This record gives sequence, structure tokens and C-alpha cells, in this order.
Amino acid sequence: MRFRVDPLPLPGTYRGTAIVVDVIRATTAALYLKAGATALVLARGAEAARALRQDGELLAGEVGGLPPEGFDLGNSPREVNGVVGKAVVMATTNGTRAAHAALGARHILLGSLQNAQAVAEKARETGEEVHLVCAGKEGQMALDDLYTAGVIGKRLKALGFSPEGEMAHLALFLAENPSFPVLSSSEAAKALVGVGLGEDVAECARVDVHGVVPRFLGMRGEGMVFGG
Amino acid sequence: MRFRVDPLPLPGTYRGTAIVVDVIRATTAALYLKAGATALVLARGAEAARALRQDGELLAGEVGGLPPEGFDLGNSPREVNGVVGKAVVMATTNGTRAAHAALGARHILLGSLQNAQAVAEKARETGEEVHLVCAGKEGQMALDDLYTAGVIGKRLKALGFSPEGEMAHLALFLAENPSFPVLSSSEAAKALVGVGLGEDVAECARVDVHGVVPRFLGMRGEGMVFGG
Repeated sequence: MRFRVDPLPLPGTYRGTAIVVDVIRATTAALYLKAGATALVLARGAEAARALRQDGELLAGEVGGLPPEGFDLGNSPREVNGVVGKAVVMATTNGTRAAHAALGARHILLGSLQNAQAVAEKARETGEEVHLVCAGKEGQMALDDLYTAGVIGKRLKALGFSPEGEMAHLALFLAENPSFPVLSSSEAAKALVGVGLGEDVAECARVDVHGVVPRFLGMRGEGMVFGG
Repeated sequence: MRFRVDPLPLPGTYRGTAIVVDVIRATTAALYLKAGATALVLARGAEAARALRQDGELLAGEVGGLPPEGFDLGNSPREVNGVVGKAVVMATTNGTRAAHAALGARHILLGSLQNAQAVAEKARETGEEVHLVCAGKEGQMALDDLYTAGVIGKRLKALGFSPEGEMAHLALFLAENPSFPVLSSSEAAKALVGVGLGEDVAECARVDVHGVVPRFLGMRGEGMVFGG
């Protein structure tokens, strides 16, 4: 079985199992499910999230790193209290775009450093070829996502998968470095540090700390619903 | 002073000092100069090279890894005998495209693993900001060139330069790996192995083995002339 790494999403090209990676911070939001949320709904932006939210659900999102007016949460992985028994509708541009690109794959999972081993194992259980779909940042490939794809790829390799294509190898070589310095060098991390959310980077850089893997359940309008 | 890394050439954007990197194999051709060639002329392809060659000069080039009819050399860095006192006109698509993209920079140097330290020092002597221009392969970024940019970048950093932009950091993290496994994972290397030229990869993967840095002297028609 093989795995590939796409530095940017290639919409409509995915068939087997897609692991979407937007490590700072959309796919690290597996933490909401771990903390007891019933579902995670990815929405393209703040307006889309407001429109998708149903009664009793929480809104998470950020503009310039901070929650927009009327939002309950700010997309910070350190801010997961009060989600028990509720769905979280999360506004996130790059991560949602990447997840949409993966529609067509038989299975869509959300991967991060925190669930790297778990998402690799879940992908193996599907018995399909694996595509690691990096979200990137506004159409540019992102160091943090490629690195995370490499860390997950390393675990896939240990489970018997072979890297296919040059970008899979590139990601694997990146993954030989420790996580915090790499993530800290990314533009996404620098943007968070710039708005005082540097501790989010440290949280996103934690590797293999839980086993919750969000998997795609279905659409709610334009929103994509994930469950644990 | 800063340095940037472009995974693919951005024609017309370069001002200060550009280091062009096409490690397998165009920019490793610094070896011709080291072996005593008087100049290296980069040409876009076999026809262009034939048209540019003057009396007494040698033609180097490859189609599918091997020299075309009438060519003296096959672009192999292990094949540098007989070049003493002669100019070598070298047909190479990606490397020449990248070098053309760098026109406009005040200084254009050719960088490889073999002259990594030397090209970094030469770049510092120019007193300008440095752009590492990776050639890539047919419009796709290439692992071997990004890695080499990282190895040169590491030396620039030691000389007091700061990495600017996410791709400079990515290249630096790649450069923490040993050269031969990385180069061997590239498509360029696999293509050479496929035509029986795997030993060229090992030659291109040698780091800091000489001090010859080709620098751009001027145009000969469409050809770019480099001297040591």
C-alpha cells in the first residue's frame, strides 16, 4: 500500500483515504471531540459558520487569531472547555478548503501531530491508498503542514505503507526534525505569536498525545461534519 | 543580510545575488571549470547548444541521460577529461531556465553540494542579499535542489545571513539530513539510476569538495557564459 503527500490540495483527485492536514490550527481541533463535543462542523468562514450553526451548538472561529463577535470559541486548541455534548461549528478557511478538495475520497480523516499515530492506524484500517492533503496557507504550501504530513507518513511507513512521489520523501526528511522548532518557523505560527497566541503553537506541536481521529460523516449544506 | 529560497524560479524578480541550483546535474558542472575548462556556456537544449558552439569547444548534453549524436560529453560530473583549455557548451533544460530567470540579479553564481561552502563565501563577498533559485524539474519543485539550497543556506547562516521566508526554513530543516539518501529520493536521481548513471548521484551528493564557483560573465546569443 502506498501513501502520497500533496503540499497543496488538488480538488477532485482523491479516491482512497484522504488525511487532511492543517495543523495550525484546524485539524488540531480533534481536541474538541476528545473534550466531549458530539461533532465538528468545518465552515469556510465566519458568515458560513453563523449560517450553519443550529440551536445549542457552539461557534468557533477567528479573525486575525481572535474570535469574531458572537463566537463562543477562538479556534485555540487550549480552549476546549464547555464543549461537552455540543457540536462545534468551526470557521476556518484553509482547512475547510482542503477538506472540500478531498470530497470524492472514500474516507476523509483529519490529521495533526497530536493524533499522528492514531490517524495512521485509522487510515490503515480502511485498506485504501492514503493521500495526505496539506492545506497550506492562502494557496502557498506551508512548512507546518508538510512537516506534519511527514510525521504521519513516518508512522504509515512503520505500518507497511510505501512513500510514493518526491513530496512524500521530502515530508519524511522534514519529519526527522523535532516538532516545535519546525512549527515555530512557519508563517502560521508567526501569525499566532503576533497576536499573543504563541502557546497555541506549542500545543499544536505535541506529538501522539491522543487517539481521537475526526472522520467525515456527511455534509450540512456547505459545511462538512466530522465525528470521532 | 538575508537569504531567501525559491523552490521554483521566479523570472525577473532577482536583484542582489542569485545562486542558481540544479544539483543533478547542471550546476554540479562547476567541475568542468575545476578540471581546467575555460568557460561553461549554458544552453536551453541540444539544438541551441549546437548553434552556440564555436570552433574548438566541446558539447555536453543528454537525452534520456545520454549524450545526443555529435556531443562530446554526456553531462556526467564523472566525465571531465579532455576539457582543459576549452569552453564547454552544455545543453540542460531546467538549469538553463533557472539561470535565465536570474538575469537581472547583479551577480549570478552556480551552486551545488560540491561547492556549497565556496558559493556561500563568494555570495557574502558580493555584499548583497542572496536568493537561492532552485531549478526544479519541468515546473515542479525538486527535493534535490531544495535540499542543496538548504545546505548552502546553512553555510550562509554561519556567515551571518538570516533566513527569510518559510521556504528558507524548510530548506534548512531538510539540510539536517545526510546528502546521499535525500538526493537518491529525488526524481532526477531515479531517472539517472534508470539509465545506468546511478554513480552520478553519488558524485553530485559530495559536499564541500572543491572551491570553484561559476559566475555569470555575459550572454552569447541565448547562451549564458560562466567563468570560474
